[in-house]
Amino acid sequence: MLSRIFPAWEWLRAYKKIDLRNDLTAGFIVGVMLVPQGMAYAALAGLPPVTGLYASLVPLFVYVLFGSSRHLAVGPVAIVSMVIFAQCAKVAPPGSPEYMNAVVLLCVMVGVLQVALGLLRMGFMVNFLSHAVISGLTSAAAILIAFSQLKHLSGIPLKSGHSILNLLAGAVRNLGEIHFPTLLLGLASMAVLVFFKKWRPRFPAPILVVCAATLLVWGARLDTSGIHIVGEVPGGLPPIHWPHFDFGLARTLLPAALTIVLVGFVESISIAQLIAAKERYRVAPDRELRALGFANLAAAVTGGYPVTGGFSRTAVNYQAGARTGMASLVTAALILLTLLFFTPLFYYLPNAVLAAIVIAAVIDLIDYKTAVELFRLKKSSGLSLLLTFVVTLLFGIEMGVLVGVVFTLLVFIWRSAHPHTVELGYVNEEIGFRNVKRYPGAKTFPGVLILRVDASLYFANMAFLEDWLRQAVYEKSGLQWILMDFSGVNDIDGCAVQTLEQLMRSYRESGVRFALSGVKGPVRDVLNRSTWPTLLEEHLGHPSLRQALNVIGAKMP
Amino acid sequence: MLSRIFPAWEWLRAYKKIDLRNDLTAGFIVGVMLVPQGMAYAALAGLPPVTGLYASLVPLFVYVLFGSSRHLAVGPVAIVSMVIFAQCAKVAPPGSPEYMNAVVLLCVMVGVLQVALGLLRMGFMVNFLSHAVISGLTSAAAILIAFSQLKHLSGIPLKSGHSILNLLAGAVRNLGEIHFPTLLLGLASMAVLVFFKKWRPRFPAPILVVCAATLLVWGARLDTSGIHIVGEVPGGLPPIHWPHFDFGLARTLLPAALTIVLVGFVESISIAQLIAAKERYRVAPDRELRALGFANLAAAVTGGYPVTGGFSRTAVNYQAGARTGMASLVTAALILLTLLFFTPLFYYLPNAVLAAIVIAAVIDLIDYKTAVELFRLKKSSGLSLLLTFVVTLLFGIEMGVLVGVVFTLLVFIWRSAHPHTVELGYVNEEIGFRNVKRYPGAKTFPGVLILRVDASLYFANMAFLEDWLRQAVYEKSGLQWILMDFSGVNDIDGCAVQTLEQLMRSYRESGVRFALSGVKGPVRDVLNRSTWPTLLEEHLGHPSLRQALNVIGAKMP
Repeated sequence: MLSRIFPAWEWLRAYKKIDLRNDLTAGFIVGVMLVPQGMAYAALAGLPPVTGLYASLVPLFVYVLFGSSRHLAVGPVAIVSMVIFAQCAKVAPPGSPEYMNAVVLLCVMVGVLQVALGLLRMGFMVNFLSHAVISGLTSAAAILIAFSQLKHLSGIPLKSGHSILNLLAGAVRNLGEIHFPTLLLGLASMAVLVFFKKWRPRFPAPILVVCAATLLVWGARLDTSGIHIVGEVPGGLPPIHWPHFDFGLARTLLPAALTIVLVGFVESISIAQLIAAKERYRVAPDRELRALGFANLAAAVTGGYPVTGGFSRTAVNYQAGARTGMASLVTAALILLTLLFFTPLFYYLPNAVLAAIVIAAVIDLIDYKTAVELFRLKKSSGLSLLLTFVVTLLFGIEMGVLVGVVFTLLVFIWRSAHPHTVELGYVNEEIGFRNVKRYPGAKTFPGVLILRVDASLYFANMAFLEDWLRQAVYEKSGLQWILMDFSGVNDIDGCAVQTLEQLMRSYRESGVRFALSGVKGPVRDVLNRSTWPTLLEEHLGHPSLRQALNVIGAKMP
Repeated sequence: MLSRIFPAWEWLRAYKKIDLRNDLTAGFIVGVMLVPQGMAYAALAGLPPVTGLYASLVPLFVYVLFGSSRHLAVGPVAIVSMVIFAQCAKVAPPGSPEYMNAVVLLCVMVGVLQVALGLLRMGFMVNFLSHAVISGLTSAAAILIAFSQLKHLSGIPLKSGHSILNLLAGAVRNLGEIHFPTLLLGLASMAVLVFFKKWRPRFPAPILVVCAATLLVWGARLDTSGIHIVGEVPGGLPPIHWPHFDFGLARTLLPAALTIVLVGFVESISIAQLIAAKERYRVAPDRELRALGFANLAAAVTGGYPVTGGFSRTAVNYQAGARTGMASLVTAALILLTLLFFTPLFYYLPNAVLAAIVIAAVIDLIDYKTAVELFRLKKSSGLSLLLTFVVTLLFGIEMGVLVGVVFTLLVFIWRSAHPHTVELGYVNEEIGFRNVKRYPGAKTFPGVLILRVDASLYFANMAFLEDWLRQAVYEKSGLQWILMDFSGVNDIDGCAVQTLEQLMRSYRESGVRFALSGVKGPVRDVLNRSTWPTLLEEHLGHPSLRQALNVIGAKMP
């Protein structure tokens, strides 16, 4: 009972000492990674860095309580931060109280939507985001994110929120304004981060870079020479406040909220399920939606901003040996300590280092291998990826998700409306009946057309099938029987039953009869409720093509 | 060459004397039917009755020249007239010059859209309107049309363009204002029309009713006692005029134009293809779209309004023995004669008779049998019909089409995302491998799970399949082999290939291996481009389950 509301109860009551040691290590490593990342992502979202720390505290407790994954590391993530900035910068200037208010409202909306969708059991909707779309989206988002850090990294004063082409043009036009100490510091940090990521992935390089750079700037007073620093980070517990609700604003933010819900949930559920499968426990999508929703509501009232389960931090958490949600609690405790005691230490932290942390984190997300492989496997899948990538790059993440989902579903519908339909011939005992185009020597039977439709039959492919039959009948003279192999017909809808019935009656008037073989159970159930049994009599369902041919009197070799 | 541009050339050059006699009879019968119907439908569209005659003249010539159907009777039809009234009454009061202008603009838009869609080869889009949607739509439209004639039939002054509930309420509130002579005349006409429709369907009852009622009203001067009459119908050739283009108005009318294109095209193509199949000639959807488009452009400049191939008149044309498009030319000639000489005869024609003609024509379209049968065959198909019916009745035809199409496609996607997946067992030599739930005695093999997925595999059903497998593996202990019967897998997309590969690798780590059987050609092509051949080795494609079981060492009985 208790574990149905709080899945955490299940691991908590069986908690062992050995688990604690593992959870402590993993939680600590993730925490050390999260402090700089949280601040960097908050900056990416156009918020004060401390917001990232607030978002990494209470929401983690809430998620651990309600969530069904034991390894998911919840907190601020790059893509969501990007969507927030792109949308909220349209309604208020970043840094203003109106901006902060919009972000909090967005966070409430995301939380409410997630809880509602979870209660409505809409977790399955995530299945409609194909991984072609996700891959294209992620790659494009990574590029957008990296470019958005250009100003912090180079010191060139660029306007944020511009399209990627404008950003590049601006950078080239103002190339003379590069601040070389900033650029040097940023590139050096990036080099260190990338080096450790490649050769020592479990080493908490971000905290090393943060410490080293802070010491350097403080020691050499580099902030006086034009390197931008984070400045004062308020310490202490997160402030509690209630968001101000504004209906007009909420309507403007709705597309962004839906995008965050979808993208955030996909990122979260895919890594959670991957690990759950390895560790042989179950993650319930609807429960996850609700847990993330509660976490976001908590984030909204405790000074944070929208959170989700982060892909890379969760992977680190798991690889570092985390056993249960306790690891996340350890992480949250570390964030709390940071907020209480260490915020003054970040005063001299240069913005360029935060930018380097963001870029180093997202650079791995650019994934051209999936694109190459998908194109090789199937052009339409590769095209979905490419289309999503290009649209996201040019028009942003919301548009990318929308176009990607619609395109992939249209491809599926289009293909099912033009199913693979072939004439079969008999090859030999071993191989049986095959496509006469692939096996040119296959034997056909005089007066009999054997065909196989590789599709569920429904209203949208009836026209195609009728055309195919008309053509095939036209080419065969003296046709008496059309023998349909139904083994590929997985489902049939009412319209298809009626259309085919009409077709069979009209062919029968001109002396061509139909026989079916290999009808599957669910299809048979539907046909038995129709008038086909009286129309086709014993030819409704021969178990195999061989038997059907015997009954209609064709000579098998 | 000539016949590629003008398909009419094909029948024209082989035209025989016997064809002419048949075409003359059929064309005459349709013409006699079209004169009163054209006027009635024009009135339904909120236009002067003569507009219906104009729309039945030049467009017919144009269609015969470019169309590929030899039997289609083009002209004004009820549903399209209804859509026109519903939309145009929102932008201008019926009868005003602005109203007429909107209708002409709509006609141009419909024509341009049809020609453009035809050139883009988009004729296939008609396949996505399932006949469940068409049936629901038609029944609801028939009811809407019948109720819209209430005011003409009863003489109660009701406001047009209202919802069906408002119309009914208005009628009940003003029941005292019934004009009994009008009602009597209307009901009597309807009785005659319905009687002949049922017992002598080929008798041109509308012209009989028109003549009798006109004579009666003229002889007894009933128009002075409050029966509304058509009044002056201008005679002579149609006026030529160019529509005035207004971008804002065009945008407002766009949904109506799209609906007319879709609904008109469906009505036209379905009856044309039905007859073409019986007469063994081909109707090309894209060519039909273009031909109807040209006909509409002709209607727009010759004082007409949007036309399409009418269901009932085409059926009459065919049953009356029409052989070629010559029949339509005869019809057009009769309309021309009417315009030149007979329009004064319609002066005393009562509106109630036109209303009766409309109602008698649409009453047959109310079709509950399809609904009952679809519900029996498959709930989802029946539900599509019911939903379209209800939405059309409450919110109009545009909304009905939109909701119907979207719902039917969602049902299809939803089902394909939750495919029928079963465990198989061996029954006997004759029957082979079947679902163990349907054949409880079927033999299963220790350490082997045989499963069959009845679906094309694509990104949206991967989650379902993973869940199914996880559950099945959990229930079977000591599992070593998962044997997948791919005979129902008609297609596979790149995402599914990658997801399944990951799945197979992760299962192999825990000692469970995969083997496939019955992989179809198109699926095999995709898999051969992936890494599955190295992953599965000889188990990639066993020809049958029997052979796969032999190779993996399971003992067949």
